[in-house]
Amino acid sequence: MANVLTPQGEDFPRWYQDVVAKAQLAENGPARGSQVIRPTGFALWERMTAEMDARIKDTGTENASFPLLIPESYFRREADHVEGFAPEVWMVTQGGGKDLEEKLAIRPTSETIIGEYMAKWVNSYRDLPLLLNQWCNVMRYEMRTRLFLRSSEFLWQEGHTVHESYEDAHAFTLRILHDVYADFMENVLALPVLRGIKTEAERFAGALNTFACDALMRDGKALQMGTSHELGQKFAKAFDIQFQGKDGKQAHGWTTSWGTSTRMIGGLIMGHGDDAGLRVPPNLAPVQVSVMIVKDSDEVRAAARKLYDELKADGLRVKLDDRGDIAFGRRAVDAELKGYPVRIELGPRDLKNGEATVVSRVEGSKQSVPLGMIAEAVAAALAGAQQQLWDEALGFREAHTVDVASVDEAVEAARTGYARMPWDACGVEGEARAGQSAVTVRLLQREDGSVPDSLDESGLIAYLARQY
Amino acid sequence: MANVLTPQGEDFPRWYQDVVAKAQLAENGPARGSQVIRPTGFALWERMTAEMDARIKDTGTENASFPLLIPESYFRREADHVEGFAPEVWMVTQGGGKDLEEKLAIRPTSETIIGEYMAKWVNSYRDLPLLLNQWCNVMRYEMRTRLFLRSSEFLWQEGHTVHESYEDAHAFTLRILHDVYADFMENVLALPVLRGIKTEAERFAGALNTFACDALMRDGKALQMGTSHELGQKFAKAFDIQFQGKDGKQAHGWTTSWGTSTRMIGGLIMGHGDDAGLRVPPNLAPVQVSVMIVKDSDEVRAAARKLYDELKADGLRVKLDDRGDIAFGRRAVDAELKGYPVRIELGPRDLKNGEATVVSRVEGSKQSVPLGMIAEAVAAALAGAQQQLWDEALGFREAHTVDVASVDEAVEAARTGYARMPWDACGVEGEARAGQSAVTVRLLQREDGSVPDSLDESGLIAYLARQY
Repeated sequence: MANVLTPQGEDFPRWYQDVVAKAQLAENGPARGSQVIRPTGFALWERMTAEMDARIKDTGTENASFPLLIPESYFRREADHVEGFAPEVWMVTQGGGKDLEEKLAIRPTSETIIGEYMAKWVNSYRDLPLLLNQWCNVMRYEMRTRLFLRSSEFLWQEGHTVHESYEDAHAFTLRILHDVYADFMENVLALPVLRGIKTEAERFAGALNTFACDALMRDGKALQMGTSHELGQKFAKAFDIQFQGKDGKQAHGWTTSWGTSTRMIGGLIMGHGDDAGLRVPPNLAPVQVSVMIVKDSDEVRAAARKLYDELKADGLRVKLDDRGDIAFGRRAVDAELKGYPVRIELGPRDLKNGEATVVSRVEGSKQSVPLGMIAEAVAAALAGAQQQLWDEALGFREAHTVDVASVDEAVEAARTGYARMPWDACGVEGEARAGQSAVTVRLLQREDGSVPDSLDESGLIAYLARQY
Repeated sequence: MANVLTPQGEDFPRWYQDVVAKAQLAENGPARGSQVIRPTGFALWERMTAEMDARIKDTGTENASFPLLIPESYFRREADHVEGFAPEVWMVTQGGGKDLEEKLAIRPTSETIIGEYMAKWVNSYRDLPLLLNQWCNVMRYEMRTRLFLRSSEFLWQEGHTVHESYEDAHAFTLRILHDVYADFMENVLALPVLRGIKTEAERFAGALNTFACDALMRDGKALQMGTSHELGQKFAKAFDIQFQGKDGKQAHGWTTSWGTSTRMIGGLIMGHGDDAGLRVPPNLAPVQVSVMIVKDSDEVRAAARKLYDELKADGLRVKLDDRGDIAFGRRAVDAELKGYPVRIELGPRDLKNGEATVVSRVEGSKQSVPLGMIAEAVAAALAGAQQQLWDEALGFREAHTVDVASVDEAVEAARTGYARMPWDACGVEGEARAGQSAVTVRLLQREDGSVPDSLDESGLIAYLARQY
């Protein structure tokens, strides 16, 4: 096939740009760092939101919608929060042709405005836990932007909850990390993720603790895929979220917040893509199977339509490509670019033999299959593709994770992936030193790979890497 | 039951406010006219978006996402459009702590920015039709706001398409009006809608023709529920959307745009609600059946849970209300307020008799049903409720539509509903005169009730009313 993309090995960032453009996923918008997400890219996001939303609702969380614009004064109420976000804010100063009395920030995140309303809605322990989520757009002013990965506007979900106790809030923060985020990323996106706690330098502005899922991209750089924050009572005190407890006394609530965004599309591209384009895991894929006519004829069209209808009736997500006026080769390259897991190619010769050709994008296999057995062949190809993407990504991560003993070694190892070392041997000072070489501590785990409850635990293990 | 709401007959606007507040649908946000949509209100919107999205996709339209911020210069390219929207725009002037070089408008609607990108994507007749839609937030500066009905920020879908010819664009505009909008409003929302063409005074800024769906509220005022605009070649020329036709010649495309918003929630409330609260049609209802324990006991709880599981397994949207610590009466009032179509009340006495009480919110009926026959009783109650809401709304509209011969009579008749008269007898001058009494021409139809192709047709009939 023609080389439509810069090979990954030649220039990975260029390959990424090429894929995003040629698979028609997204383009730059007119305002600095904004993005236009095209139908092929947006279909990925729709599938992500559907899968994530079901998992979020399974935790008892309900969706709501809060305003885009937040009075500047709200930010000032939590000191660390304003310090973290003030430089990133886009500001509305005019409305209806006049200057506004108070400037309004376009939400960079909504802890403040949601905190304001939670304070009204929470009165008694009976109102708790209060579990809210919203799917929306947010904006952060960015100097250097890259589509999906770092954009001034992005789409995301942000969950915000209030709990009766530290224990409840803590458990919920981790439930989101494991049962919603990691479960989705591993079982749907087929991306193995490290789960752990962020260092003080990397935690969310205003949080007590930030927990994260982190994935390794095929260029050896790490991508933060999602974060879940334990906010302690800091926002509850700043916004006066109080409730009457079972003991009749007033107490401040314990809040959490957690988010994942269109950035995950970037993770999908760079975690699985190859020199021919995207490789979309079947459990996510908006198009799991593309039924393609090779050459146009009434018989081929009819047979393709029949296959399409049958596979659709089986509950698969199927696309019918019967565009006879576009050369088959061009359409096949496009299908590879867009990463459809399975293609069924149907031409006059196949049809004469009572067969179709089943092509697996991931396994790279091509087989002639009798028309009556297509459903089984497709099911097997989809299951195989999901497993292979997972195996490859996990194998890649294992092959690109190196145990080291010093920060210098970590910086060296981070050229190709994760460096793993005792946090005691790195520490805040080592973290700052690694940062000078653009290497950051991605997260800390316990020695057995489990997630620490806080930074106070001893014997923690640090993962360092270059990051997106 | 206690009178938790101001009766409709006493003060309709106050009744509306009460319902929105007490059913916990929405609250005012901090910025002028912004709104917080609470979970109960947002669940209605989620069901609306699901039903609408399926219908939109059935037309071949794909979802995408365009930026929130639009350079001010884009608006200036279409003269009528800028004139219509300039006074309503919220403006971003600062980002990252600095003044921006060019002011950015928060989108009040996205014809301009989407037009800019369509011009890039459309090159040949093979690229047409280009059918796009986005679900997003928009903002318009408003002086007088009311939750859901007129808010500075609202959620909506906006469709934008490009076609090869006037005929294609025109047919698509009407397809959206009938097959997407009216079909959803009538078959899901159970609200009969008038369909017709808007007068020149009422058409979208920059459109050739605007078509609309209009519904009558229970106070006799009309609500515009959705609009579909034929934009001709005006935006295609302003944004240079050109394609090479089958004849090899360059031509400008023909565009359309169409939108419906969270305003439909207001229509749902005022089109069906009564003095006890919302009445949600079963085809929309996020909660079709609420299974409620009357008194707390292990047996009652277990039986309620069993019913809940069974109904859920039948594919119904069910809520289990087993909050034994809140008085039954209070929970029943809340269920009425939120308009759940069917309640199943289960107490110790019912259980002893092997029965449960099935209550229909709309029919106002209460019947004891053997536990083994609940599914049938619920199905019948849901079907009956959907039909009755439709019949009531249609009957109300018919009873509140009066044929008149003059503008003065129309203004008088509009006190209680629609006034219908020949457009020739009203005309642009009559329209302006009626406007002085806050009565507007909602839309024009042909004499047989069908939708005119343009304002040039003769013998059209005008519907006048007071409006939201």
